[in-house]
Amino acid sequence: MTKIGICGYGNLGRGVEAAVLKNPDMELVAVFTRRQPVSALKIKANVPVVHVDDAPQWQGKIDVMIMCGGSANDLPVQGPAMARMFNTVDSYDTHAKIPEYFAAVDLHARENNRVSIVSIGWDPGLFSLMRLYMGAVAPCGQTYTFWGPGVSQGHSDAIRGVQGVQGATQYTIPVESAVERIRNGENPELTARQKHTRLCYVVAESGADKTRIEKEIVEMPNYFSDYDTTVHFITQEELQANHGTLPHGGKVIHMGETSADNKQMIEFSIKLGSNPEFTSSILLAYARAAHRLALKGECGARTILDVPPALLAANETWSLL
Amino acid sequence: MTKIGICGYGNLGRGVEAAVLKNPDMELVAVFTRRQPVSALKIKANVPVVHVDDAPQWQGKIDVMIMCGGSANDLPVQGPAMARMFNTVDSYDTHAKIPEYFAAVDLHARENNRVSIVSIGWDPGLFSLMRLYMGAVAPCGQTYTFWGPGVSQGHSDAIRGVQGVQGATQYTIPVESAVERIRNGENPELTARQKHTRLCYVVAESGADKTRIEKEIVEMPNYFSDYDTTVHFITQEELQANHGTLPHGGKVIHMGETSADNKQMIEFSIKLGSNPEFTSSILLAYARAAHRLALKGECGARTILDVPPALLAANETWSLL
Repeated sequence: MTKIGICGYGNLGRGVEAAVLKNPDMELVAVFTRRQPVSALKIKANVPVVHVDDAPQWQGKIDVMIMCGGSANDLPVQGPAMARMFNTVDSYDTHAKIPEYFAAVDLHARENNRVSIVSIGWDPGLFSLMRLYMGAVAPCGQTYTFWGPGVSQGHSDAIRGVQGVQGATQYTIPVESAVERIRNGENPELTARQKHTRLCYVVAESGADKTRIEKEIVEMPNYFSDYDTTVHFITQEELQANHGTLPHGGKVIHMGETSADNKQMIEFSIKLGSNPEFTSSILLAYARAAHRLALKGECGARTILDVPPALLAANETWSLL
Repeated sequence: MTKIGICGYGNLGRGVEAAVLKNPDMELVAVFTRRQPVSALKIKANVPVVHVDDAPQWQGKIDVMIMCGGSANDLPVQGPAMARMFNTVDSYDTHAKIPEYFAAVDLHARENNRVSIVSIGWDPGLFSLMRLYMGAVAPCGQTYTFWGPGVSQGHSDAIRGVQGVQGATQYTIPVESAVERIRNGENPELTARQKHTRLCYVVAESGADKTRIEKEIVEMPNYFSDYDTTVHFITQEELQANHGTLPHGGKVIHMGETSADNKQMIEFSIKLGSNPEFTSSILLAYARAAHRLALKGECGARTILDVPPALLAANETWSLL
């Protein structure tokens, strides 16, 4: 059994709590939170809720701590700190800062003989893995990544920041004609606009100027201005009834060439009922690997690209069949 | 640079020869053959053709020997023997005997401090890897494998063994309605017949009884009797013009569940212009990994499931992006 701790009880933490039930070789030991008093946090599992400041007392009782905080504010502090006390797995996903974060976690994990697997999830994560495998087994080709159809929480948050917006859900949608061009072997150069469209369901506050809101959304730099964006105003009730879940998906497509005559197409795609639950489930698979690496006497930080696949299998009698 | 030897110059060996040109960090050093005289073998690359009996003299000059012989007769003998002299990569694919083959190669590789990666290809190989990843990151689900549309060389050979048959190409074709049922989340139980159909293009010898030939094919146990099989008789010219290449493909589809509410679908698919060229290209990526494992001081046999993905990347500055 791998004894699991959860640090942070948002969407991801709840997902890990659910995923433990799907993995018979995993046991949830405790949930760690910053809330005061800890009794304010109600969880589903019948395990102690512990304040993060008391984490040092749980060393030796937890094989892997799954870090479920956010990349912006939580993980840069909590990741290296927890790596001193526990083997850890996290989903740090601020792409540009991954090398810096990796170095910080690596230092603390090594000093204390722990294993930390960082930036686990589906992108970065499984998709990074697929891009690497595809490029290696079919070089001289191009690799394309599409996200969606699915809810982008970052873009939904950005819309909620617009004055007069009461609620919003943003769907990122791949342009199917672009996907088809790639599958047909055209190896096209594609701009952001040619790859994805953005569909926004927005609840305006009573009396707000919808024309201004729509303009502010579609012209928002970084988030929307480089895309064809559609805004639909709906009621709060419709938002809750029809746009309250977090489906997502995406695909990595590689068109390689092994000789002048022969193209080789490789595609990896996912269609997720719940984005956070899937990420949580991946975190748990890599917790198994972190525990096994630690049992082998390894230490330091790792990414998904460093981990031998066999270490993920629940049943050690894996096979090639 | 990784110095490559090719052992065996059939479809696979020629594929490796072509794939080396697509990998700037690889250099072909020599091609090994059992033919006598070796001058009878004409190759494309400007490197020596050497008799396999002279392989011992090439120790130290080759980083990885790529074993391109067949699984039935060549590899069981050549694989362990070459593993005493070189790091090796092979595509041994007799599923039931992989553990026995692995053990033999492992013994010889360990005794001589070599690394051997066995059973590389797409199935067993990449598909094995995907089945493992999918089952680990989304447990409580079912995984389905489909092969084709593509040419099955084993089934084509079986048809050629029928009396009165002059030539044949057999296509294995996935049943699209079964694929759709899986994608829709039905988790169906599927028989062999429900998953694949078999389409045969056959050239009959002049005066042969086509009715008997067709009956013998569709009723052939193991190969055809469990499938819906269609036989088309064509001319030798049509066979050569339209059915002379070796395209293939396939997919692994996994439908997992992370909670009662949420299904998570993962799909990996390939569409190959040339089956042997793709296998050769995968072999070469794992030759890079074998060389790196040996440089790290490791030894013994490995499967695709044991190899950390990062070791495959041509450019060591891989990233998660």
